[in-house]
Parts: sequence; structure tokens; C-alpha cells
Amino acid sequence: MKSDLNQYLQDNQADALWITGPAQHNPPMVYLTGGGHMTQADVILRAGAEPVLCHAPMERDEAAKTGLTTLNYSKYPLKDRLGQAKGDRLVAHALLYKHIFEELGLTHGKVILYGRTDAGKMLSTVNQLQEMLPGLSFHGDMEDAILLQAMATKEPAEIERIRAMGKIVVEVVSRVAEFLSNHLVVYELLMKEDGVPLMIGDVKAKINLWLAELGAENPEDTIFAIGRDAGVPHSSGTPTDPLALGQTIVFDIFPCEKGGGYFYDFTRTWCLGYAPDEAQLLYDQVKSVYDQVVSELQTGLNAAHFQDRTCELFEAMGHPTTRQDPAVESGYVHSLGHGVGLNIHEKPWFSQKEDPSNILVPGSVFTIEPGLYYPDQGMGVRLEDTYYVTPEGTFEKFVDFPMALCLPMGGKKR
Amino acid sequence: MKSDLNQYLQDNQADALWITGPAQHNPPMVYLTGGGHMTQADVILRAGAEPVLCHAPMERDEAAKTGLTTLNYSKYPLKDRLGQAKGDRLVAHALLYKHIFEELGLTHGKVILYGRTDAGKMLSTVNQLQEMLPGLSFHGDMEDAILLQAMATKEPAEIERIRAMGKIVVEVVSRVAEFLSNHLVVYELLMKEDGVPLMIGDVKAKINLWLAELGAENPEDTIFAIGRDAGVPHSSGTPTDPLALGQTIVFDIFPCEKGGGYFYDFTRTWCLGYAPDEAQLLYDQVKSVYDQVVSELQTGLNAAHFQDRTCELFEAMGHPTTRQDPAVESGYVHSLGHGVGLNIHEKPWFSQKEDPSNILVPGSVFTIEPGLYYPDQGMGVRLEDTYYVTPEGTFEKFVDFPMALCLPMGGKKR
Repeated sequence: MKSDLNQYLQDNQADALWITGPAQHNPPMVYLTGGGHMTQADVILRAGAEPVLCHAPMERDEAAKTGLTTLNYSKYPLKDRLGQAKGDRLVAHALLYKHIFEELGLTHGKVILYGRTDAGKMLSTVNQLQEMLPGLSFHGDMEDAILLQAMATKEPAEIERIRAMGKIVVEVVSRVAEFLSNHLVVYELLMKEDGVPLMIGDVKAKINLWLAELGAENPEDTIFAIGRDAGVPHSSGTPTDPLALGQTIVFDIFPCEKGGGYFYDFTRTWCLGYAPDEAQLLYDQVKSVYDQVVSELQTGLNAAHFQDRTCELFEAMGHPTTRQDPAVESGYVHSLGHGVGLNIHEKPWFSQKEDPSNILVPGSVFTIEPGLYYPDQGMGVRLEDTYYVTPEGTFEKFVDFPMALCLPMGGKKR
Repeated sequence: MKSDLNQYLQDNQADALWITGPAQHNPPMVYLTGGGHMTQADVILRAGAEPVLCHAPMERDEAAKTGLTTLNYSKYPLKDRLGQAKGDRLVAHALLYKHIFEELGLTHGKVILYGRTDAGKMLSTVNQLQEMLPGLSFHGDMEDAILLQAMATKEPAEIERIRAMGKIVVEVVSRVAEFLSNHLVVYELLMKEDGVPLMIGDVKAKINLWLAELGAENPEDTIFAIGRDAGVPHSSGTPTDPLALGQTIVFDIFPCEKGGGYFYDFTRTWCLGYAPDEAQLLYDQVKSVYDQVVSELQTGLNAAHFQDRTCELFEAMGHPTTRQDPAVESGYVHSLGHGVGLNIHEKPWFSQKEDPSNILVPGSVFTIEPGLYYPDQGMGVRLEDTYYVTPEGTFEKFVDFPMALCLPMGGKKR
């Protein structure tokens, strides 16, 4: 939780966090500021002190809305800095931060840099700044310290925001199911009213429309992949693929709040009209592993334990897994899940047995998403829900939705 | 243009560009790959060679779609790298790049880093990599070299994509105008059918819905600001502000293609029902400066020349400008415009007189957006269109839309 940040700073012998970049679609900045419409800002969080938000003069009102202590960049005019820097824009940019850090009394110690922004510009800026303030050392965070650790345990208000996204997701998924099943079928293909086959691109357009209508944003697109594409976990689907009966469709949807806030992650696999035996078998196996693993969830265990357990279960069914060969492309080829929050992927990670910060605890929010993939046979199955751990240590699914493989067609056949 | 990249590499004595991060909402990566659904990728562009796209194993199909030469991260398994790194994840991450750079024969020279991604993680990775490959030097780009320079001159296909976004924008703006003018007015407030006043948040929800319906994305939100908010250029508007007659509304809309592609930027200022004299005066002055500056546009001049000219025109009318005081908050308080492309703000910049790469040339795409702001009087006016320079050197507006200040109410009054 945010209130743990100071402790994590101490644990990591860090003196400050420096969060930079825009206020939208930049999870560390959204976490500290709550988001808003700032194209560039910096939050400096010194150990034991309140965070300070540095902002552009034109964005002073948006900055004030955050309720944080603010510092206007205009205090250090570019003109003056360019003068000092003899016209060198990089030096002038680094001077802005030199002034800010000095103003905040931060000239010695370890600073951890965060922010989804222009990485090259920050690299040059920090290297320049390092020469100006040799008492400071600048570091990045390899996903195993401080900010992501704080973000990994959600407060009740965060849980409710994620649940609200979950409700939007299942509303959209049920609209998609109804939309598909109401289509006319001609020779195994779903047909639009104008007599043209319905395509993946048409379905995705509807998904985006409904997400926008319900107030969500879809920055990372949706996976809606049929046939061979369904057998490749990260294939997002081919827009011109027609919707055909009896093929596995992996529908993985992971939108976030408008402006780049909390995500929700959810997957169902459907066969339209009927499910061939080999798809049904694959589905039944994935479903049984899903149920088994969910029944075994418990706090105090590292998330990686459940990845291991999933591999064990799939291997017992005769499927290759990444545990046997990390480069495997058929069978069980990915991780059981991942944390979800302001990042679509965050702690707990399911791949790092040795890291205690991936242990499931109250406030953990994560996906459970076993899957089996056989691209050469033109099929794949994945089932995914997002879970959280209550303050009492029980595991709850945010929202419910039917899991069945076969999506019956309600429209007429011809 | 992309074909100029090699020349720019030579001009800057650079040996390679290194573009990193996701394939969506990451302009440098979209420029080189065309976008697509890759959560993490690297493009290495060596001087005189074809670019190479390095990708995650699960994203091999998306990588193949780009048509670029590909290199699968799985060639350097994490397990092996972690072993080499004695479990240090940062070192293991840097080793991935060491292997890739060595594979591409890139062990000496100057590498320029690009990408909108986790800046802290890249800082640590590059610093680590620097120790492993001391023959390389890594730099960022202060917006004045290579990639942004290439991006600043658009090819015909890019011009048409921006125009398509412009058409979507004016369609949405005309829907908003119609939506507003059809509302019932009660005591100067627009009322919804349920008898509740229409609020900024309601209008923004409609804008997002219509943008999604037309296939666009709105990653940076819309400015729809009324009254005092209209007087603060970057205020995005207060969602709970009611829509009232006779107040200036600054409506600045800047969506992009789905997935983080080309942007369009457009602003109109409206007074609903009637325009008070002081708002009309402000509008007339902005409009006359807009017309004057557009009439003077010519190639071969630095964009900053027109910023200067705009200050001159506003100062002659008695308004304070940023030229007199960069921290000014009333009067003409921002830049005349900016380049538009895969970034909502890119070259040409209107603030750097000395930089020849901001000279207007065929292929330049930029906004013209003079404005006047008086927050203490609760008003602001801005007018903005996006322009481009044809191969023949003429200046064209992408799409047309009426500029009038007063938006007459067609609904009934009560």
C-alpha cells in the first residue's frame, strides 16, 4: 500500500523516489498523483517527507487538483537555464532537475527513477545531472523493489475500482456473446446483414465501442483470435479472419479506466455453434486445471508455487510445459498469471520462486489463466479470471461469468 | 522521411538507433514497425543496414507481420542469462542486450536510444550494459536529431492518415455541436431529459463514444473547458461543471489512430446561445491574428518566426505575451503551434529560432493555434487547425470546419 512506501525506501537504503513523465498512461505517476491531465510532471518522494509535485506553468490547475504540495517549473525559467547552459538544451534540461533537487535539499543519497516516458531523453538527462550532483546516485527498479512492491497490495478503494472495471468487462463480453449468436450462419460462416462474412475486425470495433460507452479505455487492444491464431497466446487476431463455427476463439480482454487507470484482465474461449471433440478435450483439461489450482490457492505461498503446480498438472496429462523447456511453443507455454493494477502486468509475478515479495497476501490482485496451445492443430484454449485476497485472507473472484466452451448460435442457418 | 534516417545517422556521427518498448503508444516503435500488438520489442537500426526487430517468443507472429528481419529473444534464454548473472535480474536483462548487440556486430560506436517505456529500468540496464560493452556509448536524443527529424517530414501515406484522423475529428465536433444545440435551456443552463443539468463530463463521455465508434483513440483526453477553466490553456475542464450559456468554451480535441498512431489536433471556442461583448472582442482578435499568420505562412522560414510574429500582433493589441514574460498567465501565454504526427507534439517546434530543423518545408505538418486567456475574467479563446506543406510548397488545412464563436441553441427555452 502507498503507506508502506516509506518503509520500502528504508528497506532499500533509498533516499528518494523520482517519478517522471505524463500523468496519464504512466502507472507510477497515476499511483502518486491520481492521474489527471498533465503532459509532463515530476513527483519527488523523499524518505520521511510528503511528496512534492513539480509541474508546468500551464498545468498548475491540474497539479493543484492532486492535493499534493506543488512546485512550478516556471521558478527555473528555460531562458535562464539555456543561458547558464550556453544554449545546450540537454544541459538546460538537466539544470531544471538540479535546481529542483537542490530546492528539496536532496543532494546526497540514492534516488530511484520511475516513469513511462522517453527513455533516451531521461538517460541523457540523468547522466548529465549525475555530473552536476555527484553526491546523488540514480537507479532504476528491476521490478522487485519499492514502488511495485507498494502497488502489489491494494487498498479497499483500489479493489473497488478494479471490480468496477470487471463489471464493465463482463458486460462487454456478454454483449459480444449475444452479438455473435444473433448472426445468420451460411456454410459455417457468420454473415452480416449485407451478406458479407463477419470478421474479427468487426467484432473488435464493437468491443471498442462498448468499452468507450461504458467509460473504459482499451490501450493495449483486445485479443480475439480464431483457429491457428488462438494457438499463439499473444496473437491479437487477424482483423480479416472470418468468424467460423467450430473453431476455438480465444477472447482475452484487458481494458483500463479512462486515462490509464486500473486494469481488469479476463479470458474466455469459445467455439461458435459446436465444439469439435479435440477442442472440447483441450477445454476440459484447462478447466480442470483452473478449478484445481483455484481450489488450492492460499496465502503465505509464493505465486510461483502455483505456476509449478500448474506445470505438474498439465505434464501429468501429457502436455509439454515451459518448466521442461522455456522455448516450448505447443502445450502450456506461459505463466499461470500475473498481478493486475495500474499495470496490466505487475506483482505478484508467478515466475520468481525466490522472491518473497511475490507471496500471496491480503490485498494481492492477480489473474489465474491456465491455457493449452496447439497452433499446428489450429487451436488454443485459455480461461482467465482476476482474483483478489480479502483482508481475512480468502480468495475472491471479482466478477462471475459463464465458462462454457460452446457458444450456441441463436440465429438462423441457411 | 524514413528514407532520410541513414543520412541523419551519418550527420550525427551515430552508428545505430536502438528503439525499445511496446509496439503501441510508443511513437518511435510505431514509426519503425508500423505498430501491432507487441508488449516489448527492440528495433536496432545500424547505419547502412536494414533494421532488425527483436521480439518475445510469444509475439513471433506479430513480429513477423511487420515485414522486418526478426530476432527472437528466446535465442538467449533467461535461465541461461540468470545463471551467468548469478541470479541478478538486472545483469541478466543487460546480458540480453549484450548478446543482441554482439550478434549484430555492434560493439563499437555511438548508439542513440529511443522509446516510451520504463525510464528507470532502461537507465539501469544501459548503465550495466555500458560496463559489458565499453566500446559502445549510449545517448538519448534531445528532440533535435535523427528520429524526430526524420518524422518531421511526412510522406504522402502519412499525410493521408493524418487527414483521415482530421475527418473523424470534424465529424465528432459537428456531432458535439448538434448535441449541445438540441438541449433544452432552463435559466441559462442546458438540461438533460431527466431534468438534471448537462455537465462537461457528459459531453466528454459522448466524445469518447463517438471517437471509438469512428475507430479513433483518445489517449490524452479532450480539453472541454468552460469559464475560468477556458482561461487556463491546459485545464482539461471540470467534469461536474454545468454547460451554461454565454460563457467561452475551449474545445480542444486531439485523438489518434487506434493503437497509438497518427494524431490530429483541432480547437474551436464556442459560446452557447449568445456571445457577450468581451468574449466576442477576444474572439475577433484571435481570429484576426489566426488569419494574418496563416496568410503569411511560407516555406524556408523557421516556425519560430511565426511565434514571434504572433507575439508582435497580440502585443500591438495590448495583450501581454510570453515573449515579454515567459511566466505570464494572462494574454497570449503559449506557443503558436507544434508539429503533429505519431506524437501529438513533435517537430517543427515554434520556440527554437536557432534550430534549422524547425524550418517549414514540404512534408511539414503542424498546428496553428493562437489564443488569448484571461482566467480572472473567466474566459479564454483558442482557434486551432492542423496544416501541412504540399510537395509544391503550398500550405493546406487538412479539413475545414466553421470557426464562429456563437453556437446558436436550437432547443426550446423555458
